[in-house]
Amino acid sequence: MKVWTEKDLDSSLSKARIASRSLSNADRDAGLVAIAEAIVAEKKTILKANSYDVKQELTRGTSAALVDRLELSSNRIQDIADAVVEISRLPDPLHRVVDQWQISNGLEIQKITVPFGVIAMIYESRPNVTVDAASLALKAGSAAVLRGSSNALSSNRAIVAVIRRALEGCSIPADAVQLVDSAERAMVTKLLSARGKIDLVIPRGGGSLIDHVVENAKVPVIETGIGNCHIFIDSSADHQMVIPIVMNAKVQRPGVCNSVETLLVHKKFSSEVLTSLLRKLKGAGVEIVGCEKTREKFAEASAATEKDWGEEYLDLKIAVRIVDSVEQAILHINTYGTQHSEAIISANKVSTKLFLDQVDAAAVFVNSSTRFTDGYIFGFGAEIGISTQKLHARGPMGLNEIVTHKYLVEGEGQIRE
Amino acid sequence: MKVWTEKDLDSSLSKARIASRSLSNADRDAGLVAIAEAIVAEKKTILKANSYDVKQELTRGTSAALVDRLELSSNRIQDIADAVVEISRLPDPLHRVVDQWQISNGLEIQKITVPFGVIAMIYESRPNVTVDAASLALKAGSAAVLRGSSNALSSNRAIVAVIRRALEGCSIPADAVQLVDSAERAMVTKLLSARGKIDLVIPRGGGSLIDHVVENAKVPVIETGIGNCHIFIDSSADHQMVIPIVMNAKVQRPGVCNSVETLLVHKKFSSEVLTSLLRKLKGAGVEIVGCEKTREKFAEASAATEKDWGEEYLDLKIAVRIVDSVEQAILHINTYGTQHSEAIISANKVSTKLFLDQVDAAAVFVNSSTRFTDGYIFGFGAEIGISTQKLHARGPMGLNEIVTHKYLVEGEGQIRE
Repeated sequence: MKVWTEKDLDSSLSKARIASRSLSNADRDAGLVAIAEAIVAEKKTILKANSYDVKQELTRGTSAALVDRLELSSNRIQDIADAVVEISRLPDPLHRVVDQWQISNGLEIQKITVPFGVIAMIYESRPNVTVDAASLALKAGSAAVLRGSSNALSSNRAIVAVIRRALEGCSIPADAVQLVDSAERAMVTKLLSARGKIDLVIPRGGGSLIDHVVENAKVPVIETGIGNCHIFIDSSADHQMVIPIVMNAKVQRPGVCNSVETLLVHKKFSSEVLTSLLRKLKGAGVEIVGCEKTREKFAEASAATEKDWGEEYLDLKIAVRIVDSVEQAILHINTYGTQHSEAIISANKVSTKLFLDQVDAAAVFVNSSTRFTDGYIFGFGAEIGISTQKLHARGPMGLNEIVTHKYLVEGEGQIRE
Repeated sequence: MKVWTEKDLDSSLSKARIASRSLSNADRDAGLVAIAEAIVAEKKTILKANSYDVKQELTRGTSAALVDRLELSSNRIQDIADAVVEISRLPDPLHRVVDQWQISNGLEIQKITVPFGVIAMIYESRPNVTVDAASLALKAGSAAVLRGSSNALSSNRAIVAVIRRALEGCSIPADAVQLVDSAERAMVTKLLSARGKIDLVIPRGGGSLIDHVVENAKVPVIETGIGNCHIFIDSSADHQMVIPIVMNAKVQRPGVCNSVETLLVHKKFSSEVLTSLLRKLKGAGVEIVGCEKTREKFAEASAATEKDWGEEYLDLKIAVRIVDSVEQAILHINTYGTQHSEAIISANKVSTKLFLDQVDAAAVFVNSSTRFTDGYIFGFGAEIGISTQKLHARGPMGLNEIVTHKYLVEGEGQIRE
């Protein structure tokens, strides 16, 4: 296999741009169905390529959890294909009239949704993201430039080849899906500098990937995913709600971004219920670190350091801090949080309103688990990622978040005075 | 005056962040009225500081046009104050419910508009932008971090001091308006790297300023302003419309971003009307460069080079190219344009639809001047700039374009299955 150069990248981006121009009005749904069918039909080719990647990782001594993320199976491939069919059935996000009005000189203005053009996705291990990202971009009328992780390169090559072959029989040009066929990180940096060639880049992965993208991108980027989420238990919190909500937010799936990492507890909240909650967490294998006051109430907690307040554990670990008031809880969250998902458990309307108003985050929850920040749960039918920035999209992103708009202005010879 | 260090910048940004937290629900309109009154009341102080900047520029031999942009007068200050009062009267862009729905488990979801938090503006000469940018940010519930050009530093210091004094008597903290009090470009680079401290940066100025910001920003940025705009005269164009529209788009105010730079003319369009148009442009002092076919029809045009197609003249100069079809015109625009404002003059519905569909720009016009791309004309009541990127805002930006949103989710103990 020949090594990719910067020239290959340039040529790949130019092809994506040209292909993107015919996507807006093409039969994108038929293309997606063709992709789903091809993925199932060419399952063997994909599995063979994937087993090469898996073997490489096993040789390197990669952890079983990481190898599991990478490994495909016949069932997984069927699930991937089913997800593509589901995307094809979602409503078209393009050509929607968002607003329309007439101005005094008679000009008619329409604001309509249109494709971005070329969307680049930079992501880690799971090869299913290759299909998912390509399908979502195509459905939104954009060409996809895909850069998966180097340890899935063989799988991604096979998958993109299958997708492109499938498109050859459709009205969508095969060049609308491009794989950045290089394991070098320098190619990512080059990709991130391609002003005018890429309209949007979305990173999907861990903190270091996202930092690298945000630090180096000269093209527009949507930052996703890092969630240092909090639950604040107010003095008035319903005792029946506290344990189920916190257990769900911490234990149900600790490795995801909307799980809770720090518990803030009002000093007047029942010590018995708190102790019982912490015991239950401990029983579920959760390591507990806490402030001094927490440790007075629950001696099994180790001492939390300043670093703990800022950390996204993504693991069976939780930090606990006793606070004097809802105001102190809000200040803690706005200081240490990552503006992802924040919850209050409270029966007090004044505290709740203050929390909803003042907490600066994509999603703020009242009396429910933080785990609900999710494009599917929100009803978007698909999820590209969860934006933790404020520009363009904030919170779960569905198809409507990966389109842009333009103004169409129609006149009869109007000129400006 | 002491020289600013990076520490001053950090401290200034921290103060802005803290101040921003109380802006969302503060009486922002009263604060704006107080600013308008203070600017008029302290006119003398501002004029004195401004005359220092003007003298410096005259000593340096700066062009009269640039000095005029910098110079304030009693009347100009009154206009600036009036604009602030107008901003105070616009509808509140915050706390609007954009969408609300209930999901099957009973959770109630609301999507509401909220402030960005800290908005930085980096701009050139005109000191009126200092007042304008601060007022728009405050109205949108955000703190403003302002970095004007070094040759207006004395004026900007005086203006920001007046604004901050005015806010001291209001419910808005004075720290919500911060001036980056340094003439060094390194401070801009530092500002652009302040991830987590600045939520949005908007550059306003010429191409080199905007390039510097986009190339160096690690914080979210909205790219504004560069307009290489085209008018395509179709074969079916109404002869009566052509001359007034092109003259208006080129001559009325050639120095602005929505003026036309290249004329694309269908080969079948009337040679007489074209010649008469070009003569009229020439008569108005417009320099004409053209393709070979243009020069066959109009010998006074000099030869256009490849560079001409990509240039934003911002001057009394126009490039003219004869094209074979609407498709060729669209390809030219999508190749050389800056996705700002593009117009077609045509009586043919098929060509018009193709042009509206396929031209990739913020605003696409039919039978009217490109000069209408403007926040005031569009009815937004104010304009922060004209975005030429696709993320978040595209085209004229008003107050609704400098707010973000969050999701409020209310439950009764729901947990995720």
